[in-house]
Amino acid sequence: MNQKRIADYGIHIGELTRGPRNKITDVPGVRVGHCTIDTEDHKTGVTVLLPSLGNINTEKLPAAAFVLNGYGKSTGLMQIAELGVLETPLVLTNTLNVGLVSDALVEYMLQKSKKEGYELLSINPVVLECNDSYLNNIQQRMVSREHVFAAFDSASEDFAEGDTGAGKGMSCHQLKGGIGSASRILSIGGKEFTLGVLVQTNHGQLRDLTICGHAVGRKLAEKTGMDAGLDRGSVIVIFATDLPLSDRQLGRICRRAGVGLARLGSQLGHGSGEIAIGFSTANILHASSPSGFHDMRILNEEKLDRVFRAFSEAVEEAVLNSMITAVPVTGYKGHHRHSLQEFPEILSSLGQDTL
Amino acid sequence: MNQKRIADYGIHIGELTRGPRNKITDVPGVRVGHCTIDTEDHKTGVTVLLPSLGNINTEKLPAAAFVLNGYGKSTGLMQIAELGVLETPLVLTNTLNVGLVSDALVEYMLQKSKKEGYELLSINPVVLECNDSYLNNIQQRMVSREHVFAAFDSASEDFAEGDTGAGKGMSCHQLKGGIGSASRILSIGGKEFTLGVLVQTNHGQLRDLTICGHAVGRKLAEKTGMDAGLDRGSVIVIFATDLPLSDRQLGRICRRAGVGLARLGSQLGHGSGEIAIGFSTANILHASSPSGFHDMRILNEEKLDRVFRAFSEAVEEAVLNSMITAVPVTGYKGHHRHSLQEFPEILSSLGQDTL
Amino acid sequence: MNQKRIADYGIHIGELTRGPRNKITDVPGVRVGHCTIDTEDHKTGVTVLLPSLGNINTEKLPAAAFVLNGYGKSTGLMQIAELGVLETPLVLTNTLNVGLVSDALVEYMLQKSKKEGYELLSINPVVLECNDSYLNNIQQRMVSREHVFAAFDSASEDFAEGDTGAGKGMSCHQLKGGIGSASRILSIGGKEFTLGVLVQTNHGQLRDLTICGHAVGRKLAEKTGMDAGLDRGSVIVIFATDLPLSDRQLGRICRRAGVGLARLGSQLGHGSGEIAIGFSTANILHASSPSGFHDMRILNEEKLDRVFRAFSEAVEEAVLNSMITAVPVTGYKGHHRHSLQEFPEILSSLGQDTL
Amino acid sequence: MNQKRIADYGIHIGELTRGPRNKITDVPGVRVGHCTIDTEDHKTGVTVLLPSLGNINTEKLPAAAFVLNGYGKSTGLMQIAELGVLETPLVLTNTLNVGLVSDALVEYMLQKSKKEGYELLSINPVVLECNDSYLNNIQQRMVSREHVFAAFDSASEDFAEGDTGAGKGMSCHQLKGGIGSASRILSIGGKEFTLGVLVQTNHGQLRDLTICGHAVGRKLAEKTGMDAGLDRGSVIVIFATDLPLSDRQLGRICRRAGVGLARLGSQLGHGSGEIAIGFSTANILHASSPSGFHDMRILNEEKLDRVFRAFSEAVEEAVLNSMITAVPVTGYKGHHRHSLQEFPEILSSLGQDTL
Repeated sequence: MNQKRIADYGIHIGELTRGPRNKITDVPGVRVGHCTIDTEDHKTGVTVLLPSLGNINTEKLPAAAFVLNGYGKSTGLMQIAELGVLETPLVLTNTLNVGLVSDALVEYMLQKSKKEGYELLSINPVVLECNDSYLNNIQQRMVSREHVFAAFDSASEDFAEGDTGAGKGMSCHQLKGGIGSASRILSIGGKEFTLGVLVQTNHGQLRDLTICGHAVGRKLAEKTGMDAGLDRGSVIVIFATDLPLSDRQLGRICRRAGVGLARLGSQLGHGSGEIAIGFSTANILHASSPSGFHDMRILNEEKLDRVFRAFSEAVEEAVLNSMITAVPVTGYKGHHRHSLQEFPEILSSLGQDTL
Repeated sequence: MNQKRIADYGIHIGELTRGPRNKITDVPGVRVGHCTIDTEDHKTGVTVLLPSLGNINTEKLPAAAFVLNGYGKSTGLMQIAELGVLETPLVLTNTLNVGLVSDALVEYMLQKSKKEGYELLSINPVVLECNDSYLNNIQQRMVSREHVFAAFDSASEDFAEGDTGAGKGMSCHQLKGGIGSASRILSIGGKEFTLGVLVQTNHGQLRDLTICGHAVGRKLAEKTGMDAGLDRGSVIVIFATDLPLSDRQLGRICRRAGVGLARLGSQLGHGSGEIAIGFSTANILHASSPSGFHDMRILNEEKLDRVFRAFSEAVEEAVLNSMITAVPVTGYKGHHRHSLQEFPEILSSLGQDTL
Repeated sequence: MNQKRIADYGIHIGELTRGPRNKITDVPGVRVGHCTIDTEDHKTGVTVLLPSLGNINTEKLPAAAFVLNGYGKSTGLMQIAELGVLETPLVLTNTLNVGLVSDALVEYMLQKSKKEGYELLSINPVVLECNDSYLNNIQQRMVSREHVFAAFDSASEDFAEGDTGAGKGMSCHQLKGGIGSASRILSIGGKEFTLGVLVQTNHGQLRDLTICGHAVGRKLAEKTGMDAGLDRGSVIVIFATDLPLSDRQLGRICRRAGVGLARLGSQLGHGSGEIAIGFSTANILHASSPSGFHDMRILNEEKLDRVFRAFSEAVEEAVLNSMITAVPVTGYKGHHRHSLQEFPEILSSLGQDTL
Repeated sequence: MNQKRIADYGIHIGELTRGPRNKITDVPGVRVGHCTIDTEDHKTGVTVLLPSLGNINTEKLPAAAFVLNGYGKSTGLMQIAELGVLETPLVLTNTLNVGLVSDALVEYMLQKSKKEGYELLSINPVVLECNDSYLNNIQQRMVSREHVFAAFDSASEDFAEGDTGAGKGMSCHQLKGGIGSASRILSIGGKEFTLGVLVQTNHGQLRDLTICGHAVGRKLAEKTGMDAGLDRGSVIVIFATDLPLSDRQLGRICRRAGVGLARLGSQLGHGSGEIAIGFSTANILHASSPSGFHDMRILNEEKLDRVFRAFSEAVEEAVLNSMITAVPVTGYKGHHRHSLQEFPEILSSLGQDTL
């Protein structure tokens, strides 16, 4: 992918080292795929995230989620809270398509199980969503099973950001939002680990947007004459890591998702489904363990501070990447979203604030 | 309906007065409908619960849910936790059909909104499930949108219990389970209120079944030669009341769902999605209130003890009703479930234990 | 101890094997101590539980808690939820003495740290309580630091049950309650493990008391002419196990504490602080791990069903032991509690119900 | 009080109107008192907050709390979660004094009840804490009952901020922290309401401190040569409002406490007890209501966005006030904390960022 990302504008978030791709796919085994629906009235789609190269249903991964704000329709979080594992890929889409996409994910898992010859009687599909009704005629629910399967077919380590897949109809701080990603490298006990973030951004008001401490949103509001409106959006924050973390530790990270968002000016609005979900690929939980036990390695709790920082930095940068890689979009009812990339002169003056 | 229920066997649960129908529809406005799928291989279906006569989307009702055990796929609980209101009917079905049924419920709400002339861009479908794969070829996912609409069409105050609707493929304590209901009357401050319960029962082991303190399950296990197996089922407990309760108070009631279940011998097994959800019809929350405020009446917290008791009693009786009204069923792969109604001689000896 | 316990009356709860002492101290390393205050007006005290032979502050143990009903004043649960570990002994006392006892536990830990030569700047004292104001002049708050230290001095594997220590002023189902214990053996992967329970019982109404399915409470209510009153009590359920369980798994067990209580007739009343807390001694989390990681062994989730059953059985039996070992007590304002042991003729007729 | 606050340096946080005092005591009925312990080795104390002029025990107020990070020892939150009400004043102190202060608060309530002639058998003391061991010899636990009573005696609407009361030993972003406050005015339905915040700040690393988007912390770190250290602190965020909010709504506000903190650069570190707690004075819940019901007025949920913003702004400004009003302190072991007020030249250049 040759998209110009926020770092390419000289804007560097935080102090930790980025991974080679600076995407969630820097975590080995993780792949992301999109399928985009782009007609005059429909700006929507599907994004899938495959958490590992193995069979996620029989080789489950420790996982956790946290609901920053629950005005949303994401599914599958209850079982993750109970059992602490992920057993399907993650799928992103729009609010009114969660049911169909959830059904498609079940179908995908069933077909896989038949091909691989095991019986599957219970599946916990994890489908996350934001509401794209500003740019998309959401009531017509254009996403179907085929789109989900197409997204799976396209999954790879090198994926597009911005107005693509489930990001097609997203608005972020009243500009164009979408899919964004970033990663950070952590060195612990002499070994290197990666934490990667993927976001679907659909939250925030323009006048609140702050980049590296600069009130970019207020400036743009003056420039574009855009009015305020309500913050009716959402944001989904997914992270993956190869650090050996327990489900409780993953949950503690999830609860920090607001840090990166708030640094960019989010107020975590009322009308918003803000969900964080994360998993670790370091310990595989085989559904059947002959001994009846799993042997696991878990990070010492005291080391988490640095992981929290990696997460905050990656969330902040991923949100910016989702905005800067998106092109301006005109959609349903002629609604239009400017893109941050239309204002390079503003970005060029930012960089890290040095007082 | 002329089904013979547990009280008709002289078995009386608890000390509080029953409502006239002894069903959840004793709460004014509540209606229940079924659509059953009954072929050689398919024993499944849909049950819907309409919470009020009003437009539940614009006249929301205070609601709460509690996850006793989260090994389940029910959807819509997150938003209820955040906003404390119900905004759709409740739909019950099987595990692998949650997505399609959720989509059908969205469609139902959209069609309703179009008919009534308002725009609906966000819907929180509440779909609850148990796994009927013992009697039903669940992987073929036979429930479709039409079944959901048919269930809505059939909704009334006088509904069937047992192996009907979403109860068709249920097993309870390794006997036939299904849909059951019961209600209790509460007198507070000189006024009468009703609390009604509806259950979808799919939990428990035979040898643990206890009725009025009698080890009925152990007796039946000997008699039928049924072996133990694992408790892989679930149970959904829905309650409605016209008592003015806040969402927090409704949540406190939900958390007592295990009491009635445990009295019948449930161990709240690991492999089980056990969910309680309840709502109050006493305070209607209009989406738009010109003043910006709602005036509400809420029960004094000290009065809750009696409400807890009404709930426990109704849950216990509803589970027994789900079992005693169900007929024996032979389904997928020839799997068979006996019904409690095949053993009237055992029931006749029970009644309230008097030591 | 030569107390006559519920099994000595021929009453056997459940189907699993008991440990040799049938107490929580069957889990290696666990010790319990009491200090009792017994004057005309004061019936109260302190019970301590030492979770291991090691230094619990530097060799922390995985732990979890669950609030069945939060009308209580127990402390220390928040940090357990966050970090998943226990770092002090557990102390039981009465409601209005939680502050002083918490302070005494801090002092105990500080003295220990000075003796052992390490600096201790943060301590999370876990103090659990029930309200003994029916038998005890609770407002005078007679428990002091000395009582806590005396309880620690007396800690051993063979401890008394009934109206002793923090159990002195307890009422259970309006009879005399107090401290009770029981244990179960689990065989997993060819190895034997123990799960032990300790309860402080102060909950329930007489007429609801059910033993082995028999309405013992109603019978006793007629016999003694005791009236109903409100259920204003509480119950604390502590469990220990040498099974290797994660904090999440321990939490799932905690959430089943209501099963054993409900089988005895509890309604989980409103005015009640009902807390379950448990820990595993199998994995020790050293505060500092040079590598930055812990190696742990964790039970396969599918094996939990049997653990849930062991827990339910032990809770049920521990509550009965707390009642049957307690002698009748007359306390503050002449308030009196009968003991279950005054009615041996009722107990002798019970045993396991065989229909 | 004539302390120079952050606004006096021309630094204005947010866009909403401040209350007349710009303190939590702008909410009618709220009063705050301090008692400070200030010796060479001891820098600690007590701060109390009286939530209303009424008897908080019999005229309870809707309340909620949220644990941002649970590595802390605050007490009383469990009952607030269950019952949704506050029934004592709030007391702030240091980590190892929570037990004694909790006991003192119980004593205070008992003495009050005796004076006013009602029986008090159960009290839920709410005591919140941060760890002042950097500046204070915390192991000697110098806070006693007398300090708590003295703080109550001093309670008034016009209270000091900074290194006073429980703020004496606090560090914030490795500078001097302490007690801070701010308020915002909200106009809803033609009526004015106030939301006020009080913080006890003891969190954050210097290099992360950001004020109005400026990397003040990095600048100061260079200037002062201070090294990083770990973020082992905590922060307590209390808010009061006369807006009629339900306990659930108050909880939603609490969950936004991280927004204001993150805007100043907090990473919500691991070793930190970060608690938010809030109450509304608009609906009084009388313990006994003859009818059995309470009549309440509750804000329409859709109006909450503006309340969230008021809260975020007030939290951010209160933290800055806690820092700028504190003087530099040298305490235990000669540990020293600079104060933000030592660097007026940096502050003067900030103001609202205008790009």
